[in-house]
Amino acid sequence: MVVSIAGKPAPPARAKPRAHKGERTRDSILRVAVNLASVEGLQGLTIGRLADELDMSKSGLFAHFGSKEELQLATVEMARQIFVEHVIKPALENPEGMPQLWALCTSWLGHVEARIFAGGCFFTAASFEFDSRPGPVRDAIVAAMKRWLRTLSRAVEEGKRAGHVKASVDSERFAFEIYSLAIGGHWGSQLFNDALALDKMRSTILGRLRAVATPRCPVMRSSC
Amino acid sequence: MVVSIAGKPAPPARAKPRAHKGERTRDSILRVAVNLASVEGLQGLTIGRLADELDMSKSGLFAHFGSKEELQLATVEMARQIFVEHVIKPALENPEGMPQLWALCTSWLGHVEARIFAGGCFFTAASFEFDSRPGPVRDAIVAAMKRWLRTLSRAVEEGKRAGHVKASVDSERFAFEIYSLAIGGHWGSQLFNDALALDKMRSTILGRLRAVATPRCPVMRSSC
Repeated sequence: MVVSIAGKPAPPARAKPRAHKGERTRDSILRVAVNLASVEGLQGLTIGRLADELDMSKSGLFAHFGSKEELQLATVEMARQIFVEHVIKPALENPEGMPQLWALCTSWLGHVEARIFAGGCFFTAASFEFDSRPGPVRDAIVAAMKRWLRTLSRAVEEGKRAGHVKASVDSERFAFEIYSLAIGGHWGSQLFNDALALDKMRSTILGRLRAVATPRCPVMRSSC
Repeated sequence: MVVSIAGKPAPPARAKPRAHKGERTRDSILRVAVNLASVEGLQGLTIGRLADELDMSKSGLFAHFGSKEELQLATVEMARQIFVEHVIKPALENPEGMPQLWALCTSWLGHVEARIFAGGCFFTAASFEFDSRPGPVRDAIVAAMKRWLRTLSRAVEEGKRAGHVKASVDSERFAFEIYSLAIGGHWGSQLFNDALALDKMRSTILGRLRAVATPRCPVMRSSC
């Protein structure tokens, strides 16, 4: 989906009511940086470009971030926090096992529709942008993606322990399959401006979850 | 996979034995541009950056491409030709139906291992880079991706006509599923430097093809 970041409100900062003013400013700056990077790419995120976007002086920004790389790393970390807050945490409120796994999938697909990041899925875009650029920024993206894959994989594992998922399923491999399908859903919805791409992928993922479910698995509906 | 484009030979130019010298030069320049863009991103592909890489003058390059956008468009078109030559054409030499569909999948996964593009899958990276950047370059990427999805979808359709694929399968949706799995394979292999990611995805895709195959479908092996 083609979007403009202009005028888009940053996702609400729920978590830090007692943060110092300096921290709040840094947070607000980083939320703009995350949206900017999700639209224009993380590599294009320079102190100068961000200063333009915020209508701030470059020296004002240098007080927060000493270099482009430091800004990029802080932006990846902020994107990770937003992802945890808006995608992972709400899903983990569901009962363990298949309900939690399905909630993680729908929450993840839904964060693109909800425009949590202005340019779509921050991490998928950043992954492809940085996969051939060795260095600390790539390392931070890899670490965030490994954690997310582990969360999905653990949810499959818990589904097996709860007796909802067939014991024969390879948790890691199945998590990777689900992960790939969601990436494809993001790809199709963003590139083709196809609002139905995420719905189609939700239904494909639901079909895959049903295929590995045992008779003891709670009923899954297309929205949960 | 982290790669350097330095010293990497461009894929062989098989197709144009009678091309004029000027065209051959343009071709050679564009093959370097494709590799450069696949590593550093299409947005970073400027006349100046390419001139550095080729050790050519900027004015020499301007004789071939009048602007950055013209260079980017020509690069996308060259990448498309390389993709058709190295991925699609060899696969279409297989018998119609499931053998051709499976060959398209393995050929596509394999082009990353074969380093057809120095930085991995040119089009997946370009898709995520340009999905929020409206304009002719994005349009060219969208057009190329739609053609590729249609090729996959047609192969599923032919599989149904040949009696290899169950008639109940939705060709377009199934092609999108396969497509997404392959994107995930590329993502994992590139980001995690995981040589096994493509093998795992080959096996996952083979499982999905077997699940939609009829008893009349020829046997598929993990390599074809």
